[in-house]
Formats: sequence, C-alpha cells, structure tokens
Amino acid sequence: MAARQFVPNLRALENLFYSLAMSRPDPIRIALMGAGRMGSLHARNARDNPRIDLAWIIDPKPEPAARISAETGARAATLEAVLADEKVAGIIIASSTDAHLGDSLICLEAGKAVFCEKPLSLSSKELEAALPRLTSAALPPLFVAFNRRFDPHLAALKRRIDEGAIGRLESLHLVNHDPAPPDPAFIPRSAGLLRDFTTHDFDTASWLLDEPIVDVFAMASTLIDPQIAELGDVDTAKLILRTAHGMLCTISNSRRSGYGYDQRSQAFGSEGSIAVENVRETALISWREVGAALAPFPFGFADRYADAYRGELDHFIDVIESKASPRTGFRESLAAIRLADAAAKSLETGSVVSLASADASHA
Amino acid sequence: MAARQFVPNLRALENLFYSLAMSRPDPIRIALMGAGRMGSLHARNARDNPRIDLAWIIDPKPEPAARISAETGARAATLEAVLADEKVAGIIIASSTDAHLGDSLICLEAGKAVFCEKPLSLSSKELEAALPRLTSAALPPLFVAFNRRFDPHLAALKRRIDEGAIGRLESLHLVNHDPAPPDPAFIPRSAGLLRDFTTHDFDTASWLLDEPIVDVFAMASTLIDPQIAELGDVDTAKLILRTAHGMLCTISNSRRSGYGYDQRSQAFGSEGSIAVENVRETALISWREVGAALAPFPFGFADRYADAYRGELDHFIDVIESKASPRTGFRESLAAIRLADAAAKSLETGSVVSLASADASHA
Amino acid sequence: MAARQFVPNLRALENLFYSLAMSRPDPIRIALMGAGRMGSLHARNARDNPRIDLAWIIDPKPEPAARISAETGARAATLEAVLADEKVAGIIIASSTDAHLGDSLICLEAGKAVFCEKPLSLSSKELEAALPRLTSAALPPLFVAFNRRFDPHLAALKRRIDEGAIGRLESLHLVNHDPAPPDPAFIPRSAGLLRDFTTHDFDTASWLLDEPIVDVFAMASTLIDPQIAELGDVDTAKLILRTAHGMLCTISNSRRSGYGYDQRSQAFGSEGSIAVENVRETALISWREVGAALAPFPFGFADRYADAYRGELDHFIDVIESKASPRTGFRESLAAIRLADAAAKSLETGSVVSLASADASHA
Amino acid sequence: MAARQFVPNLRALENLFYSLAMSRPDPIRIALMGAGRMGSLHARNARDNPRIDLAWIIDPKPEPAARISAETGARAATLEAVLADEKVAGIIIASSTDAHLGDSLICLEAGKAVFCEKPLSLSSKELEAALPRLTSAALPPLFVAFNRRFDPHLAALKRRIDEGAIGRLESLHLVNHDPAPPDPAFIPRSAGLLRDFTTHDFDTASWLLDEPIVDVFAMASTLIDPQIAELGDVDTAKLILRTAHGMLCTISNSRRSGYGYDQRSQAFGSEGSIAVENVRETALISWREVGAALAPFPFGFADRYADAYRGELDHFIDVIESKASPRTGFRESLAAIRLADAAAKSLETGSVVSLASADASHA
Repeated sequence: MAARQFVPNLRALENLFYSLAMSRPDPIRIALMGAGRMGSLHARNARDNPRIDLAWIIDPKPEPAARISAETGARAATLEAVLADEKVAGIIIASSTDAHLGDSLICLEAGKAVFCEKPLSLSSKELEAALPRLTSAALPPLFVAFNRRFDPHLAALKRRIDEGAIGRLESLHLVNHDPAPPDPAFIPRSAGLLRDFTTHDFDTASWLLDEPIVDVFAMASTLIDPQIAELGDVDTAKLILRTAHGMLCTISNSRRSGYGYDQRSQAFGSEGSIAVENVRETALISWREVGAALAPFPFGFADRYADAYRGELDHFIDVIESKASPRTGFRESLAAIRLADAAAKSLETGSVVSLASADASHA
Repeated sequence: MAARQFVPNLRALENLFYSLAMSRPDPIRIALMGAGRMGSLHARNARDNPRIDLAWIIDPKPEPAARISAETGARAATLEAVLADEKVAGIIIASSTDAHLGDSLICLEAGKAVFCEKPLSLSSKELEAALPRLTSAALPPLFVAFNRRFDPHLAALKRRIDEGAIGRLESLHLVNHDPAPPDPAFIPRSAGLLRDFTTHDFDTASWLLDEPIVDVFAMASTLIDPQIAELGDVDTAKLILRTAHGMLCTISNSRRSGYGYDQRSQAFGSEGSIAVENVRETALISWREVGAALAPFPFGFADRYADAYRGELDHFIDVIESKASPRTGFRESLAAIRLADAAAKSLETGSVVSLASADASHA
Repeated sequence: MAARQFVPNLRALENLFYSLAMSRPDPIRIALMGAGRMGSLHARNARDNPRIDLAWIIDPKPEPAARISAETGARAATLEAVLADEKVAGIIIASSTDAHLGDSLICLEAGKAVFCEKPLSLSSKELEAALPRLTSAALPPLFVAFNRRFDPHLAALKRRIDEGAIGRLESLHLVNHDPAPPDPAFIPRSAGLLRDFTTHDFDTASWLLDEPIVDVFAMASTLIDPQIAELGDVDTAKLILRTAHGMLCTISNSRRSGYGYDQRSQAFGSEGSIAVENVRETALISWREVGAALAPFPFGFADRYADAYRGELDHFIDVIESKASPRTGFRESLAAIRLADAAAKSLETGSVVSLASADASHA
Repeated sequence: MAARQFVPNLRALENLFYSLAMSRPDPIRIALMGAGRMGSLHARNARDNPRIDLAWIIDPKPEPAARISAETGARAATLEAVLADEKVAGIIIASSTDAHLGDSLICLEAGKAVFCEKPLSLSSKELEAALPRLTSAALPPLFVAFNRRFDPHLAALKRRIDEGAIGRLESLHLVNHDPAPPDPAFIPRSAGLLRDFTTHDFDTASWLLDEPIVDVFAMASTLIDPQIAELGDVDTAKLILRTAHGMLCTISNSRRSGYGYDQRSQAFGSEGSIAVENVRETALISWREVGAALAPFPFGFADRYADAYRGELDHFIDVIESKASPRTGFRESLAAIRLADAAAKSLETGSVVSLASADASHA
C-alpha cells in the first residue's frame, strides 16, 4: 500500500533522468565585469554551467583578470570590445558597488541583458534618478541578484507559507550574523551596516511578507569593535518592521557571531510555524563525555549560499532565453534601499519611521 | 583514562544517596491563600514536598477550598485563624492578582514569610506607595515567584553565561508565545499583554542581562482576535530593549502559537551563542514518508515549568529556614512593571522610552 | 478555528487540577529490605510519594539502615518484626541479587505483596524450581520491577507501535551502553554481561515485539578491560533475536561508552519507524567556532530512569490496592533469563540457539 | 581575539578563489558503456564536469543511447570504434552487472583506464578466475566505484575515526534500508539481498574497520513481500561481523523502509562515538499542534549520494592523470563478495562463518 504512493516518485526520477530536450542548445555567450571576490565566484559557476559560454572578462587591473582567464578560459577584453561582440547576450556586473548602476545602464543600453550583483546602488536618490532611463521600453532585462531568493531552503519556506502550511502569516524573525567583522577599512565604503548588510534582510522580509512594509524601527550598538563606532557605524542591530495589515518582522544583525554564518528565518502563522535552521556542513554528530557535538555550519556566504549562486546564473540564462522574467530587479533594489534609509533615520531619531504610502505602494 | 574522570561523578552519586542530614527535620507548616488555578498547582506541589506541611487553605468560596482539602489534606480556614496559628511559618499567596500586594502586606505584618504568586502588583504606583511599609525592617521575607528563574534550562543558560561560555554577552532573543488565546473576558482584568504577559520576559531579560535596562521600544498588532483590539489590547508584540552599556534584547510575544507553548531564549556573546530550545514531551522521533516528526512540546505552562514550580516551593522553605534570601521580591516586581509601563508608553508614542536613570538604578 | 481544538486540552487541564478523589486515602504502609544503592533510591522515592508510608527498613548492617532511617523516617527492624506487623501491606526487596527469590518467597508466604528489584534470579533452574511455590493460589501479588517498562519515553514508543503508527512491526534495534565499566570485583558476582546487563534488553525486546522470541544469536568481545576477559566475561556484545513470525531484533551492548548512558531504541515497521533518542540533561544548545554542542545526556541509570523508578512505586501501590495486576513478574523474569541462557550458549557454540517451543510458549 | 582565529579561514577562502592552475588543461576524453539508469547518471555528471569530454556512448539499444546523446552531446558508437579512438583515455562501464567484469577486461586490455560501476562481479569464483589477467603488469588502472567511499559525510566519519576522535574503534552499526522494494522481476537477476545490497555495507565496514573481517553471521526474514520468499530471497536482514582483533559490526538491511532512504552509520570507540545521521532535504522545521516536523530525507540513492557520484568521476580523472591510484578496485570487490558468500552460507547454516585466514589476508 505504501509502495503505491511511491509510484509518482519513481516517475519523477525517470523524468529527471530522461526528460531533457532532444537537441541540446548551444551555450549562451556571456561576459563578466569585475574580477574581485564575487566576480571570481560567478566566473567559476559560469565555467561549470553547461548552458553558459563565459567568453570575456573585463577588469581594469590585468592581474585579477588573468587569474580568472586561467581558471575559466574566458579572455580579457575591454568593455567596448565586449559590447561590440554581437554574440554576447548578457553581462554579469560584479564591479565595485558604486559602479553597479552606471555599468548596468551602459550594458543595457548597448542591448545586453544584465545580471547585476547586489546592490544596484546604495543611494535611493541615485536609483530614482535612473528610473527614466531604466524604464525606457526598449531595454533588455535587468536582473539584480538577491541571493537568498535562490536559496533552496528559503525557497522551500516561501513555498510552504504560500501553500498555507501555517495558516495566515503573522510575523517573522530573521537572524543574519556574520562570522567575523570586516576590515575597518571596508566600513566607510559600505554605507553602513543597515544599507550594506541589512538590505538582505529587508529584501527577504519583503519577499516573505508579500505586502508593503510601512513602519520601520531600528536600535543598534557598537559592541564588537570601537573603530566601527569611530567611523560612525554600528555593528549590532535589532529592527522591527510592520506591514500595512499589521504583520511584524524582527531582524537580528551582528557583524561577528564567533561561531559561523548564522542564517536563520522563522515564520509564525495562525496555525503553526516554520523555520529555516542553520545548514550544517555534514550530518555528523559526535558524543563525548562533555556532550553531543553537531558538525559546524558554513563559515561564510560562499559556502552557505553556493546553491543560490548557481541558481542565480541559471535564472539569468532563463531570462535571456525568455523563459522567465527577472525575479528581482530595479523595483526590489529601490524597496530595499528605502527601507534601509528609513531604518537609518529611525536610528537617529529613536522613533518609528513610516514610509510614505506613495513610496510604499511603488516599492 | 576516561574512567578516571568518572570518579567525581560516582562520588556525587554517593553524596546524593547518603549525604542528607542524620536527623530529618519536621516539615514546615504553611498555608495557602487562593484555591484557583495557581493555588491548586502550588497546593499539589506542597502536598508532595516532604519539607512542607500544608495545613490551611483560605478561600472565600467554599467549593474550591474543599477540593484542595480533599486533594491535599489541608483544612479550610479563615485568614484570621491562619495568622493566629503560631506554627504557620509562611503563606503562599495565590489570590486574585489585584489582591496580591494587600494580602502580602497583611501576612508579612502578621509575621509570616510570604510566597506571592507573580505579579506582586500590576501598578507601579501601587508598588511605590507600598514601599515604606515593605521596607520596615521588622518584616519577614517576601518572595515573589518569577517561575522562569527556577527553570533548570534557563538556570543552566544563566550559569553558562556567567561562566563566560560565550565571552561577553551582547544580545538576547526571547520568544514567549502562548498556545491559545485567553478568554476575551480575561483581557480587561489582565492590564494588557505587556503588563501581564511580557513581564515574564522583562524579568528574564533583567536577570540574564544583569545590568539596568535603559531603553524600551515596542511595536504590536492585533492579528489573532478582533475582540482583543476592541478591548484596547494587542495580541502580537515585538520589543527591543537596551541596557546602559548597549546590550540589546528582542522579545517576541504572541497570545496564540497554534503549536504549543513556545518558550525559547538565545544569548549571543563575543565568542559564541547559547540557546534554550523548546523542551519536548518525549525523546521520540518518528519517520514517515512525509518526513521526520519530533514529539510535541508542552502545551501549557503547568507542564513546561513543572520543575520550576517545585523549585519555587523549595526555595521558599530555604528562605523560611534562613538558608537563602528571596531570589526575587519587591525590587524585581517593580523593575518588571516599570519596563511594562515604558513599553506601553512606547506603543502609544512610536518612540523609544528611556527609563529615568533614578528609576533604572533603583530597579 | 485552531483555538477550538484546544478546548479538550483545557478540559484535560481542569481534570488534572480537580478530578482527584474527594477523600484522600491513608498512605499504604510498606517496608524495605536492603539499604544498598537500589534500596536507597527506592527509599527516597517512597518517602516522596504521598501514597506510601515507608515504615520499616531491614538490613543486617546497622549503618546503611541508619542512613536510610535518617533520610526517610523509616525505622530499622528485623524481617520477623516486619512480617508480624499486620499493617504492612507490601515489601520492597532490594537485597543482594542472590537473595531476591528467597526473600520474595518468604514475604509472599507471609501474606505481603512483593516489589522485587530485578532480577528475581540469575538462574533459570532456580526459578523453575520455585514455580510450584509461587503459583500456589493463595499468594499475594509479586511484582518484579523491570524499570524500562515504566520509562515514559519507551512507554510512548510501545503505545505508538500498538496504535499502528508504523504499520506492522518488523524489527528493532536496541542500544544499551553503560557509561563506565564496573569494578572488576563486581564481574564474578554478576553472572556475566548477558545475564546481568542484557536481560534489560531481552525484556524490552519481548515487550515491544509482543510475540515469543524463538532464535537467539550472540557475538562478543573483550575490548575494554582485559581483566574482564580473565574473569571469563565479555564487555562488548552484539545480538540478534528472531520471533516466531520472523521479526528481528539487534542489540548492542557495551560496558563503557565513554559519553554517558546510551539508551536508544528504534522500531521499524511496514509504514515507518519510531525511535527513542537519548534524553538530554537540558534543552541547551551552544554554538562555538568548533560547531554546535548539545547538552550531555544522563550519565547514569538513576537519572535516566528517575521517572521510571517513581512509576514502579506507584504501580506497586496500584497492585496493592487491586487497581492493577503486576505488569511484570515471574513469567517475564523467567523469559528474560532463558533468553540470556540461550545467548550464553550461542556465544560458546557460534550458532543460533533456538528456544524449545515449550519454553517459548511458556515464557 | 576570536577574530584572529578567522584569519586562516579567510586565507583558505582566498586560496579557494585564486589558487587554481595558471593554464587550464584540456578535458580528458572518455566514453560510456551502458545507457541505463546508472549510465545516465554518470553521463550527466560527466557532461557537467569541466575536466571531462564525454565523447562516446556505447549501447546496443539505439534509443537509450540517443537519449544520452541528446542530453550530453556524446555520440553513439560501437565499442570497437571507441577502443580504436586513441584520444579516449578512459571508459565508464555501466553495462548490465553480469557484463561488468568482461567489459572491464576488454577495455583494460585495449589500454583504456576503467571506471566500473559496482559490483565488478557477483561471483567470487569469476573474480578469482580473472585475477591472472587483471594482475598482468601492463594494464591501465581499474577503478571500481563504491559510492559510499566518496560520500562527504562518510568520508568525514572515516577521517574523524582515523584522527582518533573517539579513541580506539570498537564497533560499528550500519543501517541501509531502501525506501521501497524492487520489482520482484529484479530479484532473480540480483543474486540476492546479501550479494546485491549488503555488499555496500560489507565494503563500508571493511573501510571503516580497517582490519580483516574474519567472522560473519546473518539472520534474515521475508516480511515485506511473500514473492521475494518464493524467489528464494529475503528482504530484511541483520548481520554481525567480527575482525581479527575483535571489533564488531552490526548491519541492518531492509528492502523497504516506507520513509525514505535510511543511510546511517555509527562508530563506537574507547572515548566516544560518532554517527552519520540521515541527510535532510532542507533545513526546514515546522511546528504544528501535532509536533515538530523535520524535512524528509532523500528518497533515493541518486539524491543521497549525488556528491559521491560526482566525486567518483573526479577521482577517475585523477587516476587517469596519475594523480591518484584507484581508491577501490579488484581487491575490494573480491573482499565484499567473499563476505557476501560467507553471509549467505551463515544464513543457510545458522552459524558463524569464518573466512579462511588466507582469504582474509588476501582481501
């Protein structure tokens, strides 16, 4: 009897084995701007993705570009040359954060689909100013890569919420603690904890809550490194958000957990709760006299979100092949940065900051 | 080699077996005021505690008192008769909340040690007004029973924090979700979610953080039952607290989880984190095609904090026998209700409410 | 909607609070033979059980008896005096193992109900020889205390199996590892690992499988302490049992785990599996750079089976009050020791030992 | 202070990013024999592995070969043509089980490195007879793919055992339960549960125990499907193994768990224990009134061992490039099948079967 129920599973397995297309399409030619940490990560994923032909790598510094060439077979090129290559269908933009928006516009206006590493910009003003150029009808699609939307664990959470597994959603708790603080030199460039780090959580909250967030409150301290305070930033923050219909969301941020990359999300609903726990490196448990020890969880984003980064690339190819619209783009970028602006203002004033309804509805 | 380390354990076992006093003391005579839900719970624990002789039960309604008599052997009596019984060393006060403070004062001034069920009062004004009477030097000890301080799991967390197991404490996250909402008729008597329910969390936070809380912020909604909103209360709340040195604490409250009594606490420090997870009813795990299912966790406070309630009684006997000072009393009661007042004010104003430094230092 | 479903739970809570009898019965007078480790444990539980009046303690050595008197208020007495006390309704026998059966017979024949600590005897011959005396119709009830049958976790497992939660039961895996090896001086008195230690597992298997075990196989080694081998015993054993209808059971035994008292059971059925995991001392989990650490599990039987030992006493009072028949007695004792005999023979011969059908049906 | 310890981790991350070779080698040309279930799985992994150029697919049936061609770009070819292609460095053999050994010999003798899907043969006689041909010095390397040796969880267990994390290894418990029984038509071709299914466990045990297994005992039943009994096989088995120095290993096998692919291993040592738990599909946990539910674990080997199958291919390329010797080959194949033969004999005789010391030392 139980065996019967397995039949659909076996069929699914067979589908998995045999259902791919009868003729395999040629890989899509893409280029990469930026040979830094995120660029390297995307380059390796592109190299290992049979749907992608990573042809060009653009970086003003020859050495990092050479390294990626050696790893992936992509050749170094200038932006002009790449834009002139008619076979290039899309460009991954992993340049420095302050160049993201400008680089994206150049590529889009040259007719290339864009995969822009998050954030599109750290300034809502800059984003708003770019809106007319971006909404010109003729532009190819712009995908801004919010990695958590592609995490299989969070995607399963979202799916379960949408299926009604916990009834009506009422509140969220998001934990986002980095393993170790960044080099203080990074702080001035980062636009602050709330605009750099918490924007991940603002986007996750917007995605899971699925209605406009209208109220934002933040409280924060500098507990980890006094240098961060001297630079005008905070390293430990707690936030509360509220949506138009009263759903609530708490966010916990820290620049240093001391125990790995703490990435947890819990949703509370009228009929139960679902949580994404931290992923462990292995399924090992060891028992010693002192107690039971579980395997550690990933120490950094590259491991924790490895599947998500691969999924982003696949989504980009789907977008280029018109199989999907960009799951996140300008709209989500602006929404996240507006929430960060509101949180920063709340930190200054000690009060709830309400997003103007026009902004909220737009976001 | 490993076996060597076990020697102390075996000695501890032996101590457990043989170390009790050579002559067993007579049980301490105590009385109980209030034959309601909490009174019944304490009555049964008193009956089962060999250090206690529960002699009297005081309740204006004859039926509940008779029920407890039948269960425990305690006899119904008037307050006057009990106060006149010189052998009565202590009185458990589990009368209605608004009578707690007055009943405590009467008993204390009659020379009886008092175990008062939480809260001592829902009004900080009332507490402040009682201060002169309570601090008169001649009074016996007053123990106000905050159950969580006696929970073995939370006590282990506190001990680990104090031992430095996670370095310097930086922040807390407390989850306190009731399984099911109370009868709306209870709401008007409860003084509201923040004064009734969240005071547990205010006390837990004060205890674990171990320095004055100076800033309070609350955001709340009514998502569970519109009647609660009509009665002027909320049913879902999120709070952020900050201490003098910048430690932060988030609190999540809900009148209805739908899945049991959610009681979790997590402490984050400079070198790691420790959490108290929900206690499960049994150590069973079952695997079916749909996934793995763990045993549910306790559906109510009586089960979740059963050990804590027993521990409270033992502590009270220790206090009567001068082996301990009351772990919590007037001071902690006033601190918790002042935090609740601040939270209520924050809810109205949408802003952080700072506790006056005088109050904070006093609390 | 969800709230509706809670109504029965609230009613159950009320029942728990108020349903006890209107007149509280006098406690039952019992006596204890044997002031050793198990005697002390039962004495303290008897003292703390309001249904029991532990009046007498019998032990040839004055000192241990005095210790228990001091702890519990029971007075030292001779067996003759106790048997002559008409108010004594039952006797707990925790004398040395080789005296269990003889002491039980004396007490039973004197008209006292008996709670005999496991095992009733280490010799199946001795048990068989006692059968005529024990089955004489006039004797009061004999309860042989197999503690695991009173463990709430294992009892929940048994209930779930019987309810059909995993379909038809097919096999079991039982893990029983002691934290640390016994003093080698204990080995000669123990009748060997299989008769002393594994009998717990034989009884658990018989209980859960619920049909006669017909085939037994054992393989064992001495890996922990060469002295144990010199004394003719083993310290690490693995067994396989088979029932009449082909259900299988594996047992894993070790005299020393090095990490606590490993007590796990897993049942596999046609529609799933249920396991009893190790119970943890607290619900704490701590995260450090090296990984997550769970609280240790109990280091000894006294902690792990504390609830079970209390439950045994309650069951004994139920038996005395004719509310229950002894859950385990002569029959289960004989069945367990016959399985141990078969396992010992299998160890010698390297072959499966089949229990004669007559024996099996009797057991 | 804690932050200091992270420096090596960041360096490791940098190495991961930048340390790959300056010139990327050309992919190795390989061919695949057999377009069935395992062939398809290896074909897709080969397609997605940038070190591999899967050029040819060999299968007498045109349709499955065409499917794999469509999926991977490999072209259908005859064995002769493939052997004649000098650029082909290695061949993956995933033909029908009874052809494995013969196909491997042909390819090896044609000078091609071989990756043979497990088992090399189901007959120890056939293997022994092939020994002279296989040990002829001139042959290229033969890798027989035992997938569990490439599972990151089991590999971590092996590493921890070898590092001494649990002291001296004493015993193992291996659980290997399939989700659902095979089509009965498969049974006659499978050479029985012990030779087909349990050989995985025999190899895992040999690997982890790391000394010759000298004694084997098996007990089994047919509980799932009476057809399996009619075909002369069993569907539920429990085994005990013993090594030369007395280490013990229990194995639990079932053709149908009803709850997924149960793949657990636990090692017990003189100072603790380490277990590989079942891997869960996601890190989700949901709480409902009925209890907590964990995400299910993989339903089949393709998901559970996905990383292992990818690792096998990488190992094969390492072998071809002379960076590694085959981790498992003829020797391990013969050892596993001899253990299966012994287990089958034990099942018949009801006794321990000892492997002749010559065989054991050879294996």
